[in-house]
Amino acid sequence: MDGRIEDGAVRVGGDARQRFYDSRGYGRPLSGDALKLAPVEAAHLLFRGDLDAVDGMDFRAYFAHATERVERFAVRFLVYADLRGRGFYLAPPREGDDHAAEGADLLVFPRGSGPWDDAVAYRVRVVGERASVDAAALATAADGPDDAVLAVVDEESDITYLELAAPEIAGSSGYDLPRTPEGAVLGDRVLCWDPPAALYESAFFGRPLSGREGVGDDGLQLSLVEAAYLAETGSLSVDGGAAAVREHGRRVEGERFDRRLTAYTALRTAGVVPKTGFKFGADFRTYADVESVDDLGHSEFLVRVLPADHAFAPRDLALDVRLAGGVRKEMAFALVDGDDVTVLSVGRLTP
Amino acid sequence: MDGRIEDGAVRVGGDARQRFYDSRGYGRPLSGDALKLAPVEAAHLLFRGDLDAVDGMDFRAYFAHATERVERFAVRFLVYADLRGRGFYLAPPREGDDHAAEGADLLVFPRGSGPWDDAVAYRVRVVGERASVDAAALATAADGPDDAVLAVVDEESDITYLELAAPEIAGSSGYDLPRTPEGAVLGDRVLCWDPPAALYESAFFGRPLSGREGVGDDGLQLSLVEAAYLAETGSLSVDGGAAAVREHGRRVEGERFDRRLTAYTALRTAGVVPKTGFKFGADFRTYADVESVDDLGHSEFLVRVLPADHAFAPRDLALDVRLAGGVRKEMAFALVDGDDVTVLSVGRLTP
Repeated sequence: MDGRIEDGAVRVGGDARQRFYDSRGYGRPLSGDALKLAPVEAAHLLFRGDLDAVDGMDFRAYFAHATERVERFAVRFLVYADLRGRGFYLAPPREGDDHAAEGADLLVFPRGSGPWDDAVAYRVRVVGERASVDAAALATAADGPDDAVLAVVDEESDITYLELAAPEIAGSSGYDLPRTPEGAVLGDRVLCWDPPAALYESAFFGRPLSGREGVGDDGLQLSLVEAAYLAETGSLSVDGGAAAVREHGRRVEGERFDRRLTAYTALRTAGVVPKTGFKFGADFRTYADVESVDDLGHSEFLVRVLPADHAFAPRDLALDVRLAGGVRKEMAFALVDGDDVTVLSVGRLTP
Repeated sequence: MDGRIEDGAVRVGGDARQRFYDSRGYGRPLSGDALKLAPVEAAHLLFRGDLDAVDGMDFRAYFAHATERVERFAVRFLVYADLRGRGFYLAPPREGDDHAAEGADLLVFPRGSGPWDDAVAYRVRVVGERASVDAAALATAADGPDDAVLAVVDEESDITYLELAAPEIAGSSGYDLPRTPEGAVLGDRVLCWDPPAALYESAFFGRPLSGREGVGDDGLQLSLVEAAYLAETGSLSVDGGAAAVREHGRRVEGERFDRRLTAYTALRTAGVVPKTGFKFGADFRTYADVESVDDLGHSEFLVRVLPADHAFAPRDLALDVRLAGGVRKEMAFALVDGDDVTVLSVGRLTP
């Protein structure tokens, strides 16, 4: 059976509708029994030997032809074929479709259903590992009605599926300090020599100078972001006030400090305790329901703070997501634009 | 007991030598029983209450004083105190000492020995998490006689110890191809339609287009770096030769492609099979002794390729090392300068 190229798609006549659409979910029916196949669909039918040729081209020739002419054809074909191999029917969105506007390359139908149903299991964006991926676009996609997925094809043509979501990071942590302690900026941290015990023990700010054993007379070390937050909320007295801490933070970290303070403040406001995520290469790890440092439990999220106009290198995403999975935490990105914080989480998916 | 500041150090008279040096490894003996303490040592004795004051300053005042005057004092003190707490005697290297030239901040003596012996367990460099860490300097330190360690103090004053080494990544993988196949550059990969089976099955180049099941008639996808290497070693025939593949690689990856090809070539030459490390956020994972893809075993190293003049952000190092540890691989950095490749490995250490 042969197809021919028409308007960038492939038209197949004969009983194509019955053979490829009705029974196996390929293409879009045209009038009569003809079928319109997207280039990835045509290539897949050629690959399987179900189509013999398209305009005289066999699979190899058509693959080369389409790679030259269709944007990201090779990676889209690889993902199409992989998902077919996992038992899904799927299709590129039609032009003018909402999904297309959201940047989806492939709509994957729930197992057992197909293009004739309305249900969509995954909206998949496909990129090669060298692409630059707009963080804000992922956050928008994550906010949609069905599961948004980023499929990354690496240089060896292996595929990593990443699931996008817009989680709420919230908890019940709060605190009440009996008095306002004083702090002094020393180096890149703030030393609080006579803190109320609750500052560390129930509010979980800082780290005792003498180690984790408890706060003695030795003082509590606060990070600059913790100190700036406490000073701004009136819970710490520092020479020069919150402005001085913030100024010092900017000096050692630049604008990144403001972004981190904005994200930190949003998390604390949502009842979550953010602590450093350094050991995980992140900005923060978060605890939802802290009552006492002696009973912290597991931290749920790793949070990386980024400017809202950040573009991901897929490899960096893969690194973060792999690490978070390995320590049973969810990987979240806090995208900061002024005072606005949008949270995007990314996890591994096996479709 | 009191000390006084002298030439940037702290001099303590009386029976200081016996009390602090002979029995507990602090300071350097001066004539008589006097002792010269480095600022971190004096601060630690003040912190413990063994010294009462230095020029009238108690611990808090001296800590603030030294933080203002001594480079990276706060982070060096935190590491000094932490290692003391782990039962080690340690000291800053003396001026003019070789260790100082190598950039070590603290020499840690083996447990049970001290500054009066010659043995050194660890040479420790101390940085704050916001520092920029010269990769070449770490590689030089890693090549030294005793264990080189990078201690990173994060913003919350927690310490991560990273052990530096200069491993040889070598193996026994080799291959013999019965004929030279042809490849075609398609998109960001090279398609080899009729490869000899050995190209994938024993030499472990590429990935079958039909998935991991084996090479059929469907062809083998090679990464650009694999294809460039094969073309340069005469094992792949491509239009335009190796130069064309290399040119395409540069177009999509810039200079990074040349660095990666140099590292890839060095690894293959050393009998190791490098495959993509994308899922781990690295450039390559390596297999030392590949005879067949059906019996690959565990890949030993994750390799990130960097220019030799790279400077690490400690947080990125923490991320890579944590991930590698989680998947039981060694994290290695291939520092590339022209055709030279220096390998630096970094692992977690609990001193």
